[in-house]
Amino acid sequence: MITIIPVRGLPEIRPADDLPRQLLEALAAQGDELRPGDVAVVTSKMVSKAEGRTVLLEEVMPSAFAEEWATRFGKDPRHVEVVLRESRRLVRMDRGLIIAETRHGFICANAGVDASNAARAGELLLLPVDPDASARALRGALRERTGVDVAVVISDTFGRPWRTGQTNVAIGCAGMSALRTYLGEVDPAGHLLVATTIAVADELAGAAELVMGKLDRVPVAVVRGYAYPAPAADVPDEGTVPLVRQAEFDLFR
Amino acid sequence: MITIIPVRGLPEIRPADDLPRQLLEALAAQGDELRPGDVAVVTSKMVSKAEGRTVLLEEVMPSAFAEEWATRFGKDPRHVEVVLRESRRLVRMDRGLIIAETRHGFICANAGVDASNAARAGELLLLPVDPDASARALRGALRERTGVDVAVVISDTFGRPWRTGQTNVAIGCAGMSALRTYLGEVDPAGHLLVATTIAVADELAGAAELVMGKLDRVPVAVVRGYAYPAPAADVPDEGTVPLVRQAEFDLFR
Repeated sequence: MITIIPVRGLPEIRPADDLPRQLLEALAAQGDELRPGDVAVVTSKMVSKAEGRTVLLEEVMPSAFAEEWATRFGKDPRHVEVVLRESRRLVRMDRGLIIAETRHGFICANAGVDASNAARAGELLLLPVDPDASARALRGALRERTGVDVAVVISDTFGRPWRTGQTNVAIGCAGMSALRTYLGEVDPAGHLLVATTIAVADELAGAAELVMGKLDRVPVAVVRGYAYPAPAADVPDEGTVPLVRQAEFDLFR
Repeated sequence: MITIIPVRGLPEIRPADDLPRQLLEALAAQGDELRPGDVAVVTSKMVSKAEGRTVLLEEVMPSAFAEEWATRFGKDPRHVEVVLRESRRLVRMDRGLIIAETRHGFICANAGVDASNAARAGELLLLPVDPDASARALRGALRERTGVDVAVVISDTFGRPWRTGQTNVAIGCAGMSALRTYLGEVDPAGHLLVATTIAVADELAGAAELVMGKLDRVPVAVVRGYAYPAPAADVPDEGTVPLVRQAEFDLFR
């Protein structure tokens, strides 16, 4: 049995806030504490705010390209400019939507640049520079303060082709493998499962979203009772790198 | 708090099996029972088997097109033929992979045709003909026998562009809305959330996968404590229809 525990009562996060302390205090305030094997799922918004990954629109000078595109679709050219700066490559630019590849390799709307979750109007929130490193740092700090080994997943809300609605997925993780692989194992009917690899970090992020909602100010959830796959022994810090499909195996670039 | 309860000990399902009875018996055998507001997540494999949605390879006569494609990539032409028959449209046919749109509108590998979960070698398992109807029937039968109102999600394992690994998503649902919409609501910072629609049925399917695994013979999970969105009053039986992104809004067809 798995339980998903919302962590409530966290304050609005500010740059340089001590996220691990706030997480542990909020958990303690609801009479709980981290246990070995828990997965702490934390929204990227919270991490970005603590890391000061914000841009003030008034300080952005849009390029001519951003200006033209924005004008065409009634967008703020400064917002478009920031999206372009956060992008490594534009995958689609159509009907006022920008689907971009971020420097992490994630493909998502607006390269993850978000106005709706910023603390102030006129401010944009960017994805963490290195969400896997953020996850490792959080995991290390939690272990240092509690002596407990947990996995950490940093989640963001992404759309996807073909299916309506967004889901939360993992953009950073530490202490676990993002993928659970059944390659070469045999199912109960005796079939060799040749190609089953489950993106469990994404499923954990999505499961946590069910207690987070968007309006409840629940930026952290603890998933308890899930025997997550151990990180690869030779690359223990690979984080979400294996979740990024390499271009040569992707039919939809 | 949400709990995800694996339902173990179900027998290998055969055509015309009484799925609701088996589900309730297995749940009772582990000292549990359905409660109002539970979500029963059931794999499509189980539903397909109960509905007899299998094809024997030896009874399939491949077309010339299937034959040529299969030969080129070392596939079984009869398997390819069944994939084509289950497809409404082929989205990509490349490097030995077929990404197809099913008659339900889902876009997935091999139109959901699966050899690995069939009960016997030489047998293919197809998706249910109408998974939303299957979900409604299961929900109705569960209510009839227990007096308890639950939601039902039928899950399948899909890949996705850009991200490695598969996740479980909803291909059928009943008793709930597949989407939770925050359109027009205001977040804690006072921003109007203009376009946040979460595919909660997919997140429920993914969450359930975490207790199912592939090898544990856990084809059912009960998600307890999630206040799922009520079905739309005017279209209570729309099921997963809103999850299918309409072509005109899809940049990746």
